[in-house]
Amino acid sequence: MRNANVLGISRGTPIQGGATASPAMQVPDSAPTTMDRKFARLALRLANSPPIALVLWDGQELAPAGKSPVARLRLNTRAALYGMLRNPELHFGDAYSTGQIDIEGDFLEALEAVYRAIHARESDRYASALRWLRSYRQKNNTILKARENIHHHYDISTDFYRLWLDQAGMQYTCAYYPAENLTLEQAQIAKMNHVARKLMLKPGETVVEAGSGWGGLALHLARRFGVRVRSYNISGEQVKFARQRLKQTEVAGLVEYVEDDYRNISGEYDAFVSVGMLEHVGPDHYREMGRVIDRCLKPQGRGLVHSIGRNRQQQMNAWIERRIFPGAHPPTLREMMQIFEPSELSVLDVENLRLHYSRTLTAWLDRFEANLDAVRSMYDEAFARAWRLYLVGSIAAFNVGALQLFQVVFTRATNNNLPCSRMHIYRDHP
Amino acid sequence: MRNANVLGISRGTPIQGGATASPAMQVPDSAPTTMDRKFARLALRLANSPPIALVLWDGQELAPAGKSPVARLRLNTRAALYGMLRNPELHFGDAYSTGQIDIEGDFLEALEAVYRAIHARESDRYASALRWLRSYRQKNNTILKARENIHHHYDISTDFYRLWLDQAGMQYTCAYYPAENLTLEQAQIAKMNHVARKLMLKPGETVVEAGSGWGGLALHLARRFGVRVRSYNISGEQVKFARQRLKQTEVAGLVEYVEDDYRNISGEYDAFVSVGMLEHVGPDHYREMGRVIDRCLKPQGRGLVHSIGRNRQQQMNAWIERRIFPGAHPPTLREMMQIFEPSELSVLDVENLRLHYSRTLTAWLDRFEANLDAVRSMYDEAFARAWRLYLVGSIAAFNVGALQLFQVVFTRATNNNLPCSRMHIYRDHP
Repeated sequence: MRNANVLGISRGTPIQGGATASPAMQVPDSAPTTMDRKFARLALRLANSPPIALVLWDGQELAPAGKSPVARLRLNTRAALYGMLRNPELHFGDAYSTGQIDIEGDFLEALEAVYRAIHARESDRYASALRWLRSYRQKNNTILKARENIHHHYDISTDFYRLWLDQAGMQYTCAYYPAENLTLEQAQIAKMNHVARKLMLKPGETVVEAGSGWGGLALHLARRFGVRVRSYNISGEQVKFARQRLKQTEVAGLVEYVEDDYRNISGEYDAFVSVGMLEHVGPDHYREMGRVIDRCLKPQGRGLVHSIGRNRQQQMNAWIERRIFPGAHPPTLREMMQIFEPSELSVLDVENLRLHYSRTLTAWLDRFEANLDAVRSMYDEAFARAWRLYLVGSIAAFNVGALQLFQVVFTRATNNNLPCSRMHIYRDHP
Repeated sequence: MRNANVLGISRGTPIQGGATASPAMQVPDSAPTTMDRKFARLALRLANSPPIALVLWDGQELAPAGKSPVARLRLNTRAALYGMLRNPELHFGDAYSTGQIDIEGDFLEALEAVYRAIHARESDRYASALRWLRSYRQKNNTILKARENIHHHYDISTDFYRLWLDQAGMQYTCAYYPAENLTLEQAQIAKMNHVARKLMLKPGETVVEAGSGWGGLALHLARRFGVRVRSYNISGEQVKFARQRLKQTEVAGLVEYVEDDYRNISGEYDAFVSVGMLEHVGPDHYREMGRVIDRCLKPQGRGLVHSIGRNRQQQMNAWIERRIFPGAHPPTLREMMQIFEPSELSVLDVENLRLHYSRTLTAWLDRFEANLDAVRSMYDEAFARAWRLYLVGSIAAFNVGALQLFQVVFTRATNNNLPCSRMHIYRDHP
């Protein structure tokens, strides 16, 4: 139980029952009252009545009216029920993590059903007005704050991510599955090649990367496409890992990992690339990011931004925002355009890879579950359950269309050195 | 000289001199004064000093300081000079059309130079503020107004467009040149196939088209891809032409041309397509257009919108807006998203075909110039000059990056029946 409570989940109410819960048993709550049952039914109605049965802490089952339930949500304590009513998104995540809530049945199907129900409710006018109000909530990713947010997530431990990411590149971003039966490793390589082809990289060109991750993309671009890459990242642990791995390669002279904020990028480059960093930038800083790109792109330079996105403006799920990705915001294309339009960068190509992220996450989840004992011994049961919820919940969100994955290619408005089609991306395609 | 003055150009000051000008000669203006010369220099400075020499009506030449001029702009009357100062965009177009202004040298190069100079000036803060203010100018394309605007342009005469559009499909929209050495006819067919492949059309599916033009796309989709098409258009002359041509084909039962506004589309379809109509819709109506699409698209339906666009918000050139395309507005991608986001349509693919429009317009211009005598005899010299300016000016705008051409593919947020790559677009590519 090293690094326990790394996600900051409150353990106020101890874990109860269930095969996967903590061994510390407590005195059970008194039997549910009529009032408890009324509030349990209210909780279902507030979630727009998904096809989920609620099981109370004494075993009583409340089935949804007129629907055959796809799963059972077991509330193991009274506190779990009232927490859900107070703050459903945040509390569900925490209560599942700590074992106050269990899901019986297909976890993914259950979360998809809840997403669909909530989503249908959110389409009404009242919810739109609420969303609009909430969208004015300040999110200020100053350089210092950005550092804290990133440390929260990425400094957990490289060993943990190594358990379930691809072995080749340690890519913690959406892979690309242009054909059936690709392994995660193949799909991550396909993604990096897809990015490189969209950028039309030529040997000897220079690339700047905003957000290195563990350095896999920079390394691959140097090795496979013969470019020089300078890659910026504010996660010290990731930079350390990336530098260590780089030393053992034949392209050590072509890649430089810089532990610094992308806003401090200097120099001019043939290409700008950022894969899976924009989610952490925050819309208030998109113009600033555009100015950084404008400053560092050569006259015929190309750029690519790859990010989780939305079809319409929406707040991040409160639990994921609090426990997993502080400061994260998946933008709509309309929001993303604030990067490009003020600096008059010209968008050449946008591709939505939504279902590729569902496949990627499924591959991660399979490896995660296969290594569950190792995860538990690194952290604790609550951490393991939280991470499972995050992975399954993300698959559900991509499957039901609540999240998107956008790759946007751009160049300067005045660059006429453009290919006559996108065929160059597909010539060597599977 | 049938249909003279169809563009509504004021002939207040008669045409002077020059090989292409009207034969009606007038008493020349008195020699330029010191004041005239000062204002001529001011006119150049206001245009941010492009590399253009001004030639006054007595032959005096004012060269730009420190630049070798790419062309000479001949002001044939005093009125031409002062008109340019009062309202440069609108007056330049009218004065060129009526022969008060001539261009000596490469017309395209001259217009590109002017565009670049003005564009550099517009990037400053003062111009940004002006643009922002002007963007609030009301443009209300009610159904009645839309009809008037479209009549202005498209009811000119089918015989006129037939002189310079492709013979196969009469496509008055950007063609697609995925390879070198395509003829205009081949490139227009390539465009229609590109659109059909992006829409993943299968035989027997139903398509609704917003804006038929002369009906070429609907006809091609039925013939080549075996789909049923219902196509809406408010230009009576175009619908008449399209119906006439359809009768002579083997797919007369598959296509229906409806003389009505796209907002009156009824029924449900497997695909929605709109090529070159959005320019006439106006941003105030994008949400409404989204609701029309949302109403008419089946659960697994796909859609494509093809439109001239911008990298950043900007008013239409005043002369083109007044004389050629009343009510037209080329949107930014950010503006276009107002179609999709409120109705939660999911953008799958955006492609920018900017330089393809430059090639298309060049092909049109070549045919236009080859048929100049026919144009003159249909209308008059001012019409012919106006149209030349419009074609050359549009080539310049696409070449310097002031205009874009966006194709946006979308579907419903919940449609998971998506291909695993865009390879299907490129399998049969040249």
